[in-house]
Amino acid sequence: MSAIISGMASLSATRVAAVLARVAERSPRVHCLTNTVAQNVTANMLLAFGAIPSMAVHVDEVAAVAQGAGAILINLGTISADGELAIPKLLEVARDRHKPLVLDPVFVELSPLRRHIAREVLRLPDVVVRGNAAEMQALAAELDGAGRVTRVTTGRIDGIEGASGSLAIPYGHPLMTRVTGLGCASSALVAACCAVEPDPVIAAGAALTAYGIAGEIAAAKSAGPGSFAVNLIDALAGIDEALLRRHMGENA
Amino acid sequence: MSAIISGMASLSATRVAAVLARVAERSPRVHCLTNTVAQNVTANMLLAFGAIPSMAVHVDEVAAVAQGAGAILINLGTISADGELAIPKLLEVARDRHKPLVLDPVFVELSPLRRHIAREVLRLPDVVVRGNAAEMQALAAELDGAGRVTRVTTGRIDGIEGASGSLAIPYGHPLMTRVTGLGCASSALVAACCAVEPDPVIAAGAALTAYGIAGEIAAAKSAGPGSFAVNLIDALAGIDEALLRRHMGENA
Amino acid sequence: MSAIISGMASLSATRVAAVLARVAERSPRVHCLTNTVAQNVTANMLLAFGAIPSMAVHVDEVAAVAQGAGAILINLGTISADGELAIPKLLEVARDRHKPLVLDPVFVELSPLRRHIAREVLRLPDVVVRGNAAEMQALAAELDGAGRVTRVTTGRIDGIEGASGSLAIPYGHPLMTRVTGLGCASSALVAACCAVEPDPVIAAGAALTAYGIAGEIAAAKSAGPGSFAVNLIDALAGIDEALLRRHMGENA
Repeated sequence: MSAIISGMASLSATRVAAVLARVAERSPRVHCLTNTVAQNVTANMLLAFGAIPSMAVHVDEVAAVAQGAGAILINLGTISADGELAIPKLLEVARDRHKPLVLDPVFVELSPLRRHIAREVLRLPDVVVRGNAAEMQALAAELDGAGRVTRVTTGRIDGIEGASGSLAIPYGHPLMTRVTGLGCASSALVAACCAVEPDPVIAAGAALTAYGIAGEIAAAKSAGPGSFAVNLIDALAGIDEALLRRHMGENA
Repeated sequence: MSAIISGMASLSATRVAAVLARVAERSPRVHCLTNTVAQNVTANMLLAFGAIPSMAVHVDEVAAVAQGAGAILINLGTISADGELAIPKLLEVARDRHKPLVLDPVFVELSPLRRHIAREVLRLPDVVVRGNAAEMQALAAELDGAGRVTRVTTGRIDGIEGASGSLAIPYGHPLMTRVTGLGCASSALVAACCAVEPDPVIAAGAALTAYGIAGEIAAAKSAGPGSFAVNLIDALAGIDEALLRRHMGENA
Repeated sequence: MSAIISGMASLSATRVAAVLARVAERSPRVHCLTNTVAQNVTANMLLAFGAIPSMAVHVDEVAAVAQGAGAILINLGTISADGELAIPKLLEVARDRHKPLVLDPVFVELSPLRRHIAREVLRLPDVVVRGNAAEMQALAAELDGAGRVTRVTTGRIDGIEGASGSLAIPYGHPLMTRVTGLGCASSALVAACCAVEPDPVIAAGAALTAYGIAGEIAAAKSAGPGSFAVNLIDALAGIDEALLRRHMGENA
């Protein structure tokens, strides 16, 4: 596909591969406060990507566990009473230790509680928000009022907008919407890249390019959403610069 | 196998396919308060079936999220303090908005707490209860006292008894008992069909016929319970009237 | 590989197979208070092994559900407020009914809360502790002070030390560290063997030998960590004495 879509650029394979190499080399830990439906697939995608998941939620330990992580993910799906208490602790760790923080506002359009929590999270500067179009639309007012937020709207073409510019990522496959937790997992991969790449636009672009291309590779060998979910993990673990280059239509 | 077993009828492939087509067309959302072991496989089965899962549990949002759903599932496995608070909210949504509600009384024979909660749920009229023989037996007194309950007892042959009649569904495979959460997921599929089919006996029959036949298709290509779980999702996503007809021994 | 490593012995295939046969015959239930990331894979490994999982956590039911189990697992990953309340109840069941108890101190090196809970668990005599080297190192003082503890340290070579002697288990594959929850699941398999084998050193050795060899079999047919996770369940379900013998280098 074209590298330029409605005026927005993609990243080159070399640029994406450089971020992925740093993830593989440094194995950043991503502390994920995430929903119980997506925890397992999120952890497996992080491991396939070369990162390390941690998922403590208890208010008496979440700060201790998160403080050594390279990035923090807050995902609002199945938010629990425990999770609600943990979020202020995680915001404090992110603020005090200048850790990248990614917010995934799952189904925020359905829940005033999630909107309220999202608002609290967005009081932190520099948050990266990854959602689908409905979620990003529902949070429009909060995002407009937030400081230096990076907006990552995933869909057929993923759009990334931040302080350093905009990207459009045209990779992926419709089967990615037929498996639960794959959007949630993409937010964790964005967080893993933010742990090793200071520009959140580049970080999100690298994560979603690798993930989308892994999705295309996996779909080509899958008989349905069950085998697709398995093959996607294999494909993500096997992504390298040559595969990126081939799928991005670049010559070697 | 025979369509008539001990006096109870199966559904025709056409009847099953008609319910499945309505699920595919309307993509009903099923709000699942379910155990954390089975959440992921339940969500993936719903997606493979063409339905949409939501799984909020927090008492401050569960009613808001559930009120737009087409059906509600309450599964008592790993019931949490959060979940216990959420159940009265879900019962209120079901009652006030006349939403179909399916109860899955996991391991109710082991837990007085689950029996107590099941009793509360069964005060609602028109509940569909899906359990195995031990669970249904343990709840016998409560089921006898409940109003217009539909009883779905799964096993080698699934039995469905309700106001409109009885069905026996002879499909499935023993590997379905070797993968965790597959019974729980079947309750969610029953709920998805209840969202589009007003007769709960027909709805449960359609869901369990499709699921059982998907199980037979998956088992034929699986090397063990791990690959079976994957193939079952693929098979369920690929079920159509022709496949139903072939596996139900009907001529085209 | 050699059966004798730095003075420690492995078990024979016959000895391992005898324990596995007892698991298959008695289908012990293992009550798992475990983290929400690993619940699903833990339950599926137990089922593949011929055991039965139960995972209640609510303080008002956990004792009732656990009291009929053959062994208890306490895993500290994603410990919740509910789980924290459940642990004293489980310790009471284990003490009063002399049930084997396995502790999995996930990431204990990162969390003072987990260290505190581990200390409470280790007041029980005869606990089996299964962790990786970092976790076992972090708990060294607590383990030294504990009564008759069996230490199971998994890694490239698994080491088991207990009252009856020591074992070294040289089986497994590096992919086992690339899938979330596989260490947690190994603790559950150790618990399943403890339910049928009174010597915890033999029980842990049998579980880890079967699991490690299943890992080797699965790795040989996998394209990455996604397919490996699936194939591992299939391989574990298919382990028998002939396969053990072949992979352990024993003649038939």
